[in-house]
Amino acid sequence: MDPLTYRAAGVDIRAGDEAVRRIAPLAASTHRSEVLGGIGAFAAFCRVPDGYREPVLVSSTDGVGTKLKIAIMADRHDTVGLDLVAMGVNDLLVHGAEPLFFLDYLAVNRVEPDRIEAIVSGIAAGCRQAGCALVGGETAEMGSFYAPGEYDLAGFAVGVAERSGLITGAHVAVGDRVLGLASSGLHSNGYTLAREAVFGRMGLQLNDPIPGVGRRVADELLEPTRIYVKPVLALLRDVTVKAMAHITGGGITGNLPRVLPRGRRARLAPAAWPVPAIFAAIQRAAAVDEAEMRRTFNMGLGFLLVVSPGAAAEATRRLEAAGERVYDVGEIVAGDPGVDYV
Amino acid sequence: MDPLTYRAAGVDIRAGDEAVRRIAPLAASTHRSEVLGGIGAFAAFCRVPDGYREPVLVSSTDGVGTKLKIAIMADRHDTVGLDLVAMGVNDLLVHGAEPLFFLDYLAVNRVEPDRIEAIVSGIAAGCRQAGCALVGGETAEMGSFYAPGEYDLAGFAVGVAERSGLITGAHVAVGDRVLGLASSGLHSNGYTLAREAVFGRMGLQLNDPIPGVGRRVADELLEPTRIYVKPVLALLRDVTVKAMAHITGGGITGNLPRVLPRGRRARLAPAAWPVPAIFAAIQRAAAVDEAEMRRTFNMGLGFLLVVSPGAAAEATRRLEAAGERVYDVGEIVAGDPGVDYV
Repeated sequence: MDPLTYRAAGVDIRAGDEAVRRIAPLAASTHRSEVLGGIGAFAAFCRVPDGYREPVLVSSTDGVGTKLKIAIMADRHDTVGLDLVAMGVNDLLVHGAEPLFFLDYLAVNRVEPDRIEAIVSGIAAGCRQAGCALVGGETAEMGSFYAPGEYDLAGFAVGVAERSGLITGAHVAVGDRVLGLASSGLHSNGYTLAREAVFGRMGLQLNDPIPGVGRRVADELLEPTRIYVKPVLALLRDVTVKAMAHITGGGITGNLPRVLPRGRRARLAPAAWPVPAIFAAIQRAAAVDEAEMRRTFNMGLGFLLVVSPGAAAEATRRLEAAGERVYDVGEIVAGDPGVDYV
Repeated sequence: MDPLTYRAAGVDIRAGDEAVRRIAPLAASTHRSEVLGGIGAFAAFCRVPDGYREPVLVSSTDGVGTKLKIAIMADRHDTVGLDLVAMGVNDLLVHGAEPLFFLDYLAVNRVEPDRIEAIVSGIAAGCRQAGCALVGGETAEMGSFYAPGEYDLAGFAVGVAERSGLITGAHVAVGDRVLGLASSGLHSNGYTLAREAVFGRMGLQLNDPIPGVGRRVADELLEPTRIYVKPVLALLRDVTVKAMAHITGGGITGNLPRVLPRGRRARLAPAAWPVPAIFAAIQRAAAVDEAEMRRTFNMGLGFLLVVSPGAAAEATRRLEAAGERVYDVGEIVAGDPGVDYV
């Protein structure tokens, strides 16, 4: 009887070691001074940054969803890591937290060091953009779960905020302005519907230009999610922001009310911001009504801020100076939490 | 043309809401006083516990690997969450950290609230055993990645330790004793090989008793991973422990050297502890040699501690009083990091 080694049973430990070797310098490129030691022990270490009187740890976990399918179809793996980090750190940012460290979980059919290096290079790039350290991760080889070439990716982000500075939306008042920051496209939500629209209804292939959009399918659908951390954290040092929302699954309709207190709703003017062409293309192809579009996609705004009327101009000026496109998209009114489009 | 709603495209938002409703009380059952607010905002909040002079955040991420395949085959989903938590918190414990909070990522073919509730009930049970709070999670419906009935699970654990109290193995000395804590079976590693041995070579079905083991396949292979947190943290308050190792993929052979300093290796006496029958059954069936077994499976010891010779008896007494089975399995000798079995 042949002995059954781990490699014969389908797990290649040597390829795993090679992947770890390639990940190490990518992770090192993200480190901040609070990180103690490197990747490789049983766990990762990060000091609580100095200067916090009552530090609160703010954490979030997310995946990239079926956007991964596009990366796999296009065999382009160096951007989904940016999406992964964005999904986590933009969530922390909602509450005013400074992203501190990040860990990833990557499950694959088979460890291929080149591909893992590409994926982690995107994660590291995202971490650098967000100013957080990639301190650890797990690569799981699970050939019995993932089809050849497929993988899944989850991320965990931890940040820190001063307890008294946590932004929760509690003080949002009638008359406050809602500012929207432009998204870079679909970001990482709505891909199940978007894929059905683009590949199914429109019958396009990856390298086809999308009618009315002017970019190829793969380029448009793999555009990385925008990371708003640095411009918004800089703003928070000088301007009071009452609430923020990261526009993910559920769209503006689903996400903005999550940070509104009782008795407050938002009245937004869709004409106040440009909806990127990709959303119109999907809507036309899929015959989706406006309300469904707005609770599925970000419709061009990836992040919202609620500020007092007196702070809106200054916040806009500062965010634009930091490179964001900013739109004053509406106001807070009395009513149950929700969004009206007028 | 029919409009393409998100539900028609394969994502059921209502089932997701129902799953979230069922998860909430499970998560609440784990909360500790440092947790601020509940699940539901964009992120989770946890204060740094009082009493740390220089708190270091210790973090780890892991999955359950192909042990999930057994849970799926057996349609028994309330134990893999315990495994998930164990994999994370035992890693933190290696460095002397107190687990503080936990987040999970669950990716499914289709959101089935009953099954998600079962999975998260296991995660919550593990968190209670470890004394950490389940503060958040993500359930991703990805029908295009996971076959019907299949899912993947990743966990993320954060703990805290006093910087001066971090256990790194740096002070391990020649003559120190290695204590082993009994595992509860395979724990969560080696399942690709174990499944091939049990289902392939032995030709068993899930409900068959395993020859020489006396338990059915599903029961033995789904036995939850032991969580060593509370007995070991209690020990650390009174006894100096120089190094610890969580025995996961790589076995004792691969994991103990990770915490040994230069110039130190371990000489272990395999006769000093009983190897559970499941390992012998796998070895016989798969004709795996002893060295391969030892670098694939925990061989009956799930966690190791290195203590000075004078502390071994006291450590053993305390750990046994806390319910652990403890074996003095060998000593530290001079040499390059590694393990000899003599």
